Amino acid sequence: MASQTPTDPAATSAAEPQTLPDRTNPADAPQGESKNAAKKAAKLAKLAADKADKANKPKQPKQPKEGKQEPKKAAKKKDSGKELIGIDVEKESDFPEWYHQVLTKGDMLDYYDVSGCFILKPASYFVWEEIQNWFNVKIKSIGVKNASFPLFVSEDVLQREKDHIEGFAAEVAWVTHAGNSPLEKKIAIRPTSETVMYPYYSKWIRSHRNLPLRLNQWNSVVRWEFKNPTPFLRTREFLWQEGHTAHLGEDAARAEVLQILDWYSDIYEHLLAVPVVKGQKTDKERFAGGLYTTTVEGYIPATGRGIQGGTSHGLGQNFSKMFDIKVEDPSNKPGEEKKPPLYVWQNSWGLSTRTLGVMVMIHSDNKGLVLPPRVAETQVVIVPVGLTAKTTAEEREKLNAEIEGLAAVLQAAGVRVENDQRDGYSPGFKFADWELKGVPLRLEFGPGESAGHFVSTARRDIPGKEGKGSIPIPELGTAVPALLETIHRDMYNRANEQFTTHRKVIEKFEEIVPALNDKNLVVVPFCLAEDCEDQIKKETAKKQEEISQSGPEDVKAPSMGAKSLCIPFDQGIGGAEITAETKCINPKCTRSAQKWCMFGRSY
Amino acid sequence: MASQTPTDPAATSAAEPQTLPDRTNPADAPQGESKNAAKKAAKLAKLAADKADKANKPKQPKQPKEGKQEPKKAAKKKDSGKELIGIDVEKESDFPEWYHQVLTKGDMLDYYDVSGCFILKPASYFVWEEIQNWFNVKIKSIGVKNASFPLFVSEDVLQREKDHIEGFAAEVAWVTHAGNSPLEKKIAIRPTSETVMYPYYSKWIRSHRNLPLRLNQWNSVVRWEFKNPTPFLRTREFLWQEGHTAHLGEDAARAEVLQILDWYSDIYEHLLAVPVVKGQKTDKERFAGGLYTTTVEGYIPATGRGIQGGTSHGLGQNFSKMFDIKVEDPSNKPGEEKKPPLYVWQNSWGLSTRTLGVMVMIHSDNKGLVLPPRVAETQVVIVPVGLTAKTTAEEREKLNAEIEGLAAVLQAAGVRVENDQRDGYSPGFKFADWELKGVPLRLEFGPGESAGHFVSTARRDIPGKEGKGSIPIPELGTAVPALLETIHRDMYNRANEQFTTHRKVIEKFEEIVPALNDKNLVVVPFCLAEDCEDQIKKETAKKQEEISQSGPEDVKAPSMGAKSLCIPFDQGIGGAEITAETKCINPKCTRSAQKWCMFGRSY
Repeated sequence: MASQTPTDPAATSAAEPQTLPDRTNPADAPQGESKNAAKKAAKLAKLAADKADKANKPKQPKQPKEGKQEPKKAAKKKDSGKELIGIDVEKESDFPEWYHQVLTKGDMLDYYDVSGCFILKPASYFVWEEIQNWFNVKIKSIGVKNASFPLFVSEDVLQREKDHIEGFAAEVAWVTHAGNSPLEKKIAIRPTSETVMYPYYSKWIRSHRNLPLRLNQWNSVVRWEFKNPTPFLRTREFLWQEGHTAHLGEDAARAEVLQILDWYSDIYEHLLAVPVVKGQKTDKERFAGGLYTTTVEGYIPATGRGIQGGTSHGLGQNFSKMFDIKVEDPSNKPGEEKKPPLYVWQNSWGLSTRTLGVMVMIHSDNKGLVLPPRVAETQVVIVPVGLTAKTTAEEREKLNAEIEGLAAVLQAAGVRVENDQRDGYSPGFKFADWELKGVPLRLEFGPGESAGHFVSTARRDIPGKEGKGSIPIPELGTAVPALLETIHRDMYNRANEQFTTHRKVIEKFEEIVPALNDKNLVVVPFCLAEDCEDQIKKETAKKQEEISQSGPEDVKAPSMGAKSLCIPFDQGIGGAEITAETKCINPKCTRSAQKWCMFGRSY
Repeated sequence: MASQTPTDPAATSAAEPQTLPDRTNPADAPQGESKNAAKKAAKLAKLAADKADKANKPKQPKQPKEGKQEPKKAAKKKDSGKELIGIDVEKESDFPEWYHQVLTKGDMLDYYDVSGCFILKPASYFVWEEIQNWFNVKIKSIGVKNASFPLFVSEDVLQREKDHIEGFAAEVAWVTHAGNSPLEKKIAIRPTSETVMYPYYSKWIRSHRNLPLRLNQWNSVVRWEFKNPTPFLRTREFLWQEGHTAHLGEDAARAEVLQILDWYSDIYEHLLAVPVVKGQKTDKERFAGGLYTTTVEGYIPATGRGIQGGTSHGLGQNFSKMFDIKVEDPSNKPGEEKKPPLYVWQNSWGLSTRTLGVMVMIHSDNKGLVLPPRVAETQVVIVPVGLTAKTTAEEREKLNAEIEGLAAVLQAAGVRVENDQRDGYSPGFKFADWELKGVPLRLEFGPGESAGHFVSTARRDIPGKEGKGSIPIPELGTAVPALLETIHRDMYNRANEQFTTHRKVIEKFEEIVPALNDKNLVVVPFCLAEDCEDQIKKETAKKQEEISQSGPEDVKAPSMGAKSLCIPFDQGIGGAEITAETKCINPKCTRSAQKWCMFGRSY
């Protein structure tokens, strides 16, 4: 049993020992799974969690003043009169508070006393490790090697590439002292490692035979943002991988950019059950100092906002010229005049723990986390059920032995399974606890199941009766892995359905804001020019302000303007083809449209 | 082929194209493996490497003034008239410069322009990943989970435990600015994470049912030391794992401390072929704020110095009292008076990339790195040999196809193998190149081997004829893995022989300094008192100064006094038993000895 969890109901036993049944007293033993027992247990859990929460909040870490850390507690709502287990706000009514509770009560993350920094607890770090394992195999298959470069970068080197540093300057954290001694020169903490690594690429790459040079590192970077932090999505320190490669030719570089982007897409779709759209960033949105940026873009249905999921940049020769990374032309022949040296073509690509935030925002619900099965640390939990005060000790022992057998079968089939033998908790309590933690599949096993040679199943992704079923014991080792795959597919399909139905092709400018207000992203014909993009953002934000004067209902809607998210590779997304006659969506723009471009409010 | 290596001889082809044979001109083709060809190639490699080195050195990174970064280039010595390939000083005559060259030319590491920070290149990072993979399996088997805590710690929290912070205060790096804005309060970069994590342990641990809480993280920490940096051994940022656990009882905590120490010992002995002595630190040397520290201690024969390899600390209840981590006594009964709350028993344990430095210092030689086979990224390299100007294109093709077959057999047997098909280099050149990189086993395959159905073998750990042999092709898949295991065992045994013969049991104080001067560690009867330990260190250093006045030979010897390294668990190490009559080694000390204690000059 994982015992290190603050949301473990046992955590509150010190505060309220008398409310928890004690297994040593048979009269007070767990009460089977009657609806009332489950409800009672859930209420206790909520009460206890609230108390623990209050007890903890003010005690330890103080919040620094700049940047608000934890979202304000919304007044407790019993919105629709529905019973709220563990999570005490609804995703639909207070998304930020819901997100906060799902992460903390679901045991993924905790808030830290340095604003903008967060603790990744084992449940979330496990998902990150799964992503690491999967991606390492892929990149190593094409010859990328892992390495480790320092956390620090000197001021001189950091500022060598002007456009690049401009993109980060305001967010760079500076070390100025060691102990009580001021440093001779202040030293930056890397916001990304282009400038950390490329002086050495210049040193190491002496000939075309040293190419391609392909290094990756798993590390953390620091960007001291002053906007409100959001766990996983906007944090001052975050974990990521950053790949940095150098190629002799443009084509090889481009092929790699796209290969990596495909793998980023696979991480979202195949591991996290999250659909994404692949495309290229507009000039306005591309990486500072780079040539072009490709991206995978996701969609958060609850807020109707787009979210950048990972970027793979073609840097061109910009950095190689700045950092003098060049080789002799291999086509030079002895005796002939030498051609000019060739500057290498570089790429950089990064994927961060933002992945985890997207996964949680999309799948989770008002009962807590819903984890996609391929990356869930615990894929299946077995809960003993149907025990009453009349059950004898031998019957209990027999049942537990059977359950251990079931767990062994599943482990042998490669399933990550927990056997919840905790004393002193009713099945209903345990159900709610595991639902909070998002375990994809619950198996229930009691005297009835034992007699009938089956296990009862309850899917986390489908609440209520529809998600229930049973599996004959002899089929357990094959049926459970198959069911986990079905859960993955269904989770993906539901998220994809949400995404596709909320991606509106729009050709009239005035339809953009209403579409955004209906939580859509929009796909519009666009000229691709930067000034036009600025104008669209401004106009869609302004329109919003105008609308919001009309009534209190609209005031709640965000006034954020639409940003370009990407130019989808699949231009079929726009339906009709862009022709020379297609005008840019912006009525104030006189240019022709170049591409269908996806716009939206975004993170 | 790994092409991303600065020591790749191809790296210098731009500078000296005419000295490199061109495969396109048959008359200039590689010359088989005659001794002359090998010598010539080696000389070229050295020349080229020197040039590349000169070309690179001054160009890019500037050294900050505090702390010297790269060791001073010793005047090139041809010490014993022996031919020096690649590495141009001898381990025996200029150890610091040798270490520098072995690491940089062997492609493990590069120096970085922020003093005290280093770049871990793929060859060294791979070893670290192997250590990670091995240790992760072990710790997860006892329920430790990986997590990630922030890089930063606020000043208030950092200073909560006074003894602890005193041990680190002078080395803490402080962030004071973000962009151009001063922070309201300066923020420390973690020198270790006790104070980062324990406020949350206090929050999360609410009941004995939350125990044990066992978390580990793989991260980097920063200790801004002002002594001379040494790659892997003394660096301002270093990679490590840090485990932090909390237990209800002292016994469970102690059992874990020892279990982890066993695994640290296993990492050295079973992965890196490095012998270590397990023991406990004296009070003077234990972890700041902890109760007791256990350690694995290694030995560097070339310098005769001991080195701390990894430490597993029992923290006792000191931190839990400071950070208020307590639970209600589980033996409390309803209705009875409550017993006082129990403060948890904590451990922390850490192993760093120092492991890699110890591995290199012990095994490597004047030809370069010697990597232990279990962790070498490339375990086996196959080099085609015996080709002459008369060899036809078909013969070459046939040979290459055969070599690919051999490589496939080895891969299928789980061996990490490189097939060195590089054009334009003689076998001798390739031999020297792979020796520099420390690949444990070289296979040679040419027309002779092909006709005789065998491969020729050359072990990296045994130079010259004695390390040569052959393997019949049908046995390749079993004989090569077995040979790699033999290499591991032999490397360990040689290092262990060195360690045991340089660990002198000494009972007369005046024999300590001569023993240290003969590159020994010493095992002495010791009272364990801190003031006595200070005195021993001072006296052994003083003695050294006195001696050094006697002649130029002694002046070279280090004047460092002897520090206690550990109290070995195996007290049999001292031969005779310590009794009530055994006096402490220090003649100025009147106390009885308590234990045999290992002292030495140390890193």
